[in-house]
Amino acid sequence: MTRVDGRHEDALRPIRITTDFIEFAEGSCLIECGSTKVLCCASVEERVPPHVAEGCGWVTAEYSMLPRANRQRSRRDIDKLKLSGRSAEIQRLIGRSLRAAVDREKLGPRTITVDCDVLQGDGGTRTASVTGGFIALALACKKLMAEGILTENPVKHYVAGISAGIVGETALLDLCYEEDSRAEVDLNCVMDDNLAIIELQGTGEGRSFTVDEQQTLVQLCRKGLAELIEKEKEIVGEL
Amino acid sequence: MTRVDGRHEDALRPIRITTDFIEFAEGSCLIECGSTKVLCCASVEERVPPHVAEGCGWVTAEYSMLPRANRQRSRRDIDKLKLSGRSAEIQRLIGRSLRAAVDREKLGPRTITVDCDVLQGDGGTRTASVTGGFIALALACKKLMAEGILTENPVKHYVAGISAGIVGETALLDLCYEEDSRAEVDLNCVMDDNLAIIELQGTGEGRSFTVDEQQTLVQLCRKGLAELIEKEKEIVGEL
Amino acid sequence: MTRVDGRHEDALRPIRITTDFIEFAEGSCLIECGSTKVLCCASVEERVPPHVAEGCGWVTAEYSMLPRANRQRSRRDIDKLKLSGRSAEIQRLIGRSLRAAVDREKLGPRTITVDCDVLQGDGGTRTASVTGGFIALALACKKLMAEGILTENPVKHYVAGISAGIVGETALLDLCYEEDSRAEVDLNCVMDDNLAIIELQGTGEGRSFTVDEQQTLVQLCRKGLAELIEKEKEIVGEL
Amino acid sequence: MTRVDGRHEDALRPIRITTDFIEFAEGSCLIECGSTKVLCCASVEERVPPHVAEGCGWVTAEYSMLPRANRQRSRRDIDKLKLSGRSAEIQRLIGRSLRAAVDREKLGPRTITVDCDVLQGDGGTRTASVTGGFIALALACKKLMAEGILTENPVKHYVAGISAGIVGETALLDLCYEEDSRAEVDLNCVMDDNLAIIELQGTGEGRSFTVDEQQTLVQLCRKGLAELIEKEKEIVGEL
Amino acid sequence: MTRVDGRHEDALRPIRITTDFIEFAEGSCLIECGSTKVLCCASVEERVPPHVAEGCGWVTAEYSMLPRANRQRSRRDIDKLKLSGRSAEIQRLIGRSLRAAVDREKLGPRTITVDCDVLQGDGGTRTASVTGGFIALALACKKLMAEGILTENPVKHYVAGISAGIVGETALLDLCYEEDSRAEVDLNCVMDDNLAIIELQGTGEGRSFTVDEQQTLVQLCRKGLAELIEKEKEIVGEL
Amino acid sequence: MTRVDGRHEDALRPIRITTDFIEFAEGSCLIECGSTKVLCCASVEERVPPHVAEGCGWVTAEYSMLPRANRQRSRRDIDKLKLSGRSAEIQRLIGRSLRAAVDREKLGPRTITVDCDVLQGDGGTRTASVTGGFIALALACKKLMAEGILTENPVKHYVAGISAGIVGETALLDLCYEEDSRAEVDLNCVMDDNLAIIELQGTGEGRSFTVDEQQTLVQLCRKGLAELIEKEKEIVGEL
Repeated sequence: MTRVDGRHEDALRPIRITTDFIEFAEGSCLIECGSTKVLCCASVEERVPPHVAEGCGWVTAEYSMLPRANRQRSRRDIDKLKLSGRSAEIQRLIGRSLRAAVDREKLGPRTITVDCDVLQGDGGTRTASVTGGFIALALACKKLMAEGILTENPVKHYVAGISAGIVGETALLDLCYEEDSRAEVDLNCVMDDNLAIIELQGTGEGRSFTVDEQQTLVQLCRKGLAELIEKEKEIVGEL
Repeated sequence: MTRVDGRHEDALRPIRITTDFIEFAEGSCLIECGSTKVLCCASVEERVPPHVAEGCGWVTAEYSMLPRANRQRSRRDIDKLKLSGRSAEIQRLIGRSLRAAVDREKLGPRTITVDCDVLQGDGGTRTASVTGGFIALALACKKLMAEGILTENPVKHYVAGISAGIVGETALLDLCYEEDSRAEVDLNCVMDDNLAIIELQGTGEGRSFTVDEQQTLVQLCRKGLAELIEKEKEIVGEL
Repeated sequence: MTRVDGRHEDALRPIRITTDFIEFAEGSCLIECGSTKVLCCASVEERVPPHVAEGCGWVTAEYSMLPRANRQRSRRDIDKLKLSGRSAEIQRLIGRSLRAAVDREKLGPRTITVDCDVLQGDGGTRTASVTGGFIALALACKKLMAEGILTENPVKHYVAGISAGIVGETALLDLCYEEDSRAEVDLNCVMDDNLAIIELQGTGEGRSFTVDEQQTLVQLCRKGLAELIEKEKEIVGEL
Repeated sequence: MTRVDGRHEDALRPIRITTDFIEFAEGSCLIECGSTKVLCCASVEERVPPHVAEGCGWVTAEYSMLPRANRQRSRRDIDKLKLSGRSAEIQRLIGRSLRAAVDREKLGPRTITVDCDVLQGDGGTRTASVTGGFIALALACKKLMAEGILTENPVKHYVAGISAGIVGETALLDLCYEEDSRAEVDLNCVMDDNLAIIELQGTGEGRSFTVDEQQTLVQLCRKGLAELIEKEKEIVGEL
Repeated sequence: MTRVDGRHEDALRPIRITTDFIEFAEGSCLIECGSTKVLCCASVEERVPPHVAEGCGWVTAEYSMLPRANRQRSRRDIDKLKLSGRSAEIQRLIGRSLRAAVDREKLGPRTITVDCDVLQGDGGTRTASVTGGFIALALACKKLMAEGILTENPVKHYVAGISAGIVGETALLDLCYEEDSRAEVDLNCVMDDNLAIIELQGTGEGRSFTVDEQQTLVQLCRKGLAELIEKEKEIVGEL
Repeated sequence: MTRVDGRHEDALRPIRITTDFIEFAEGSCLIECGSTKVLCCASVEERVPPHVAEGCGWVTAEYSMLPRANRQRSRRDIDKLKLSGRSAEIQRLIGRSLRAAVDREKLGPRTITVDCDVLQGDGGTRTASVTGGFIALALACKKLMAEGILTENPVKHYVAGISAGIVGETALLDLCYEEDSRAEVDLNCVMDDNLAIIELQGTGEGRSFTVDEQQTLVQLCRKGLAELIEKEKEIVGEL
């Protein structure tokens, strides 16, 4: 089987990361994976939500698609007065993933909100948001250290996300939209720099899948995530 | 380690299923797993949403917690004018799981909505909803066949869900709330009667986890799901 | 005229009350009147809304129908982003009725919220909510006394509700849905243990009604309420 | 006891009705009862909501208070994104009352919406809305007849509303705000031109009340309603 | 060209201002310009929004149309759960205009909210709201001075608004609805008592317009505003 | 006076327009004016809203700021369940401006929605949205012609927007945020390729302004708009 863009089965799409795309944000990047473009901005606020333990910080994420991110225009959430259920699901995944990267005691009593806005969506937007969101978060923490607000880096791990899937009975890494829409099985995986799992979400869209198939997909993701984490190290530098 | 309720590490909580709890619904049950109580009702409507292919049916789910399902009262969604993000995430999981059980062509142009309302929540409400929701769905389809509306059963597989987790470095099946709130790793799994995976969601709440740990948890779930599917067969009968 | 279920004109439907149905709530019961099933939970919170006088407590109620409580499924309020007008009207009635049962000075600066969730509705859900809600409230106050939080019982009266109506020119007590949908006149009445009126709501659905007819309906309700209050005394015990 | 405005116990407040206050509406009036001012507009639309039987019409009402109708400014419903529960309760009462005035078959497949907007509220706004709303409705139907759209008047009865209450153990007709805020018992009554009851709502605000007291209040209302219906006949003319 | 109501091209419609229409408000008037009727109420509250500088006050406005203000009934904002975009645009204009009239330091730490509710709309409702809203505001400030709450009048300028437009290539002052709906160019202007501009909004509805045409319209408005400000001086008296 | 970025008083900020930034949209550009960045996407749909005349098309705009477009993060509209009043006002301005560019009969029964999403806001976002939105719209129409869906270009005029203001008594063109926040007078102007006015909005933020001052600002805008329209001609080509 040849992939629509000629890639090898275990190859990532070309990735391009423009840091500081939004100069006002404490940390930001525009992450492009193939035709997928996500703008990730990390904002620091000197307060925490009420449920957070005394002295600790908080990290949270919001995810949204611009109305013309897809092949068809969608109505804005505010027009329907409802956060899309898909966005709600995705931003919870991103938030959990990014919190796993941070020592919330070292962060201190402040909140970092990572906004992931999909400018163009061609598959893999949730995992691109995890990877781009991590970079924005890490840059914001570097800035807090450079400004002397923090003395120790609260980021304790590099974190990245990627998807894999079974399309026409072949396991493929990093599905683009055309592949994703035909996938029988779809799996998203977030790992840290030990290549240990933070989040794993697998769905049998067209059929159920065996435990062996699930393992194959996790190994594919692991390969991709090793590459992505190298990329993050180049961009963000040492923690 | 002894579990809070004295159970073995790979034991399910006592399960009790009262079918036809709501006599007006096409299919319904009250499912109780330990102290967790979820009311599941399947409603059949003779129309489908616009995105469904001509001639096919649709299966969807809604999940909600009553305000006093938990140890503290929570405000109702309508009071906040927002569907809880957690509910949005969970009902998408239930919907995907139940759609995997059904041949939507055999269902024909009708929608089955499965409402899962948590009367009391003591851990595992999302997977209890999948299991109870499946039973309500299967009973509703049996009713459509008994009434001659359908001639073939659109339910093609038994489907059930369960959770497992790592608590104090021990892998445990079917966490209750007290265990769940201390878990380092939490994994929810939905399988069909081939014990193949439909949905898999794993989260490192306190730490990341290895691929091996992930496999241990899947195997624990698999053991529990085999028991649950036997229970479903007793209640629902042959497909 | 024979009633649909063979009852005498001034007979209540069989009533079944399961207390402590929700173990987490300070007080709770599942009240079943014929096929009507309402889950009532009383929750105590150590704060009061701003409009309440210094030192006094507050009692309020929320009423909702689960989507499949009726013969047809209804959309959830949160799906429409609007509290149903009928629910708004009913929960105000329940709240006023339950506040009349309580000495708010003796309650002290705390709020008791009584959630009445209709699991199945076959007529008379608002008055079943008053009766079941009273029991949940009284049980919660007993618990506050048992825990030493209160020394005097703030519940000063037993309170219960019932409906009566004119169907085919006959006055009937405690209408079920089938009777209610054919009623010309419908009257809901809440009384205390002196059989004095707390709330009275009469509506000419099909025609206007005379003052004499109104009195007949009040006397029917009074007979039913005397029985219900006896039942409450058995369940709740002395105030 | 002398009343705050020197009225006799069974006297109405001075009433002033300005018809056609809004020239664009099919029927309208500004009704003033003492300092209470309600603008009532009836709008005719050539369609009916889906639940209405083939060939029949529909009558509905909406009730709202302008933000500065009261002694303190209140936030608008749209600012809170919630219809006030009190408004929901009241507009349901007005709608039921006005539907009782109309033969919906004679109205034909059209909807009359009666908007009751309280410009200034000094007690009795819901019953002033019923009376003023009836006049707007009757004027709109006259207009439909004058225009030849209807040949028979669908208004079959004059309908009016009034309140009575027990203040300091004295039964008083037509409470103003100052009396209403001190009332122990409050009763609203809507009758037709046979002085038969359409709606009756009594509430023990400060204490429960006997069946005899309830009857005294109904008789007070009946006296006031006889006067109001005479006034309506003068303004609207023959049906 | 003769205007629909026979007015001269630079003539205002007959204007009628009833002050203290709402006796509960600190300041109020009903302003009628031809068939346009707007109820304006100024409410004083002893607090300011968070963005206001220490010691200063705030002035804000809300604008809304009653559902039957127009030739066709419109649904209420609360029914659609959305503030109309037109109302949002207009109330921002009114708020900016009225703030320009006031010395917010002299006002001290209090908020004046001016509610402009259109009872009947026949063109020019936004500028009638500015003029009527100014009168309500000025009356409220006079009341604060009479009560000794303020010693200096915070109102520093009279402020009024009017519209002009090009209809059939003729420039006309103070368009009524029939003219407005045929206008090629529409311009709204708010000035102070120096006849200097506070707000200017011009729109080419049917075609673009030259700088010269724009000047002609501003001069027309200026003539009308001189008259309106004289009227305000008569009603409000000296500042 | 020297401007913060050293520009001449009548100079535009450096402008950069990247067309086809979003490849899925029928027309799109990223417009950057100094540090202001707005993503403009034109989407074509083959249907019109109900108020549009038979056979005609419709052009509308939506405007929104991403949460971290500004120096401080703002909450999303969907989080507050309210479209910001400022966005409502601005998107109405953009919509009217773009409709003035188009012959809606030539467009035929289709809607073009122009989404203007501010990625970074440093002043002048509304007028940048008009200019960038025009380019997206014109590119979309070119595409409809290239695909043979349209035979004549419905775009009849180039349209662009710019702001000017009085800062420290000096009239300046194209204010950046730092200038804008200190401006006494602020004026936004939209013109077509005849340099005739489509929209004009002037506000005295700190003081009222004379008719002469207003003219000075319009002439400044006119100079800037002539340059912007030349730029549009280069990018879009002939109409």
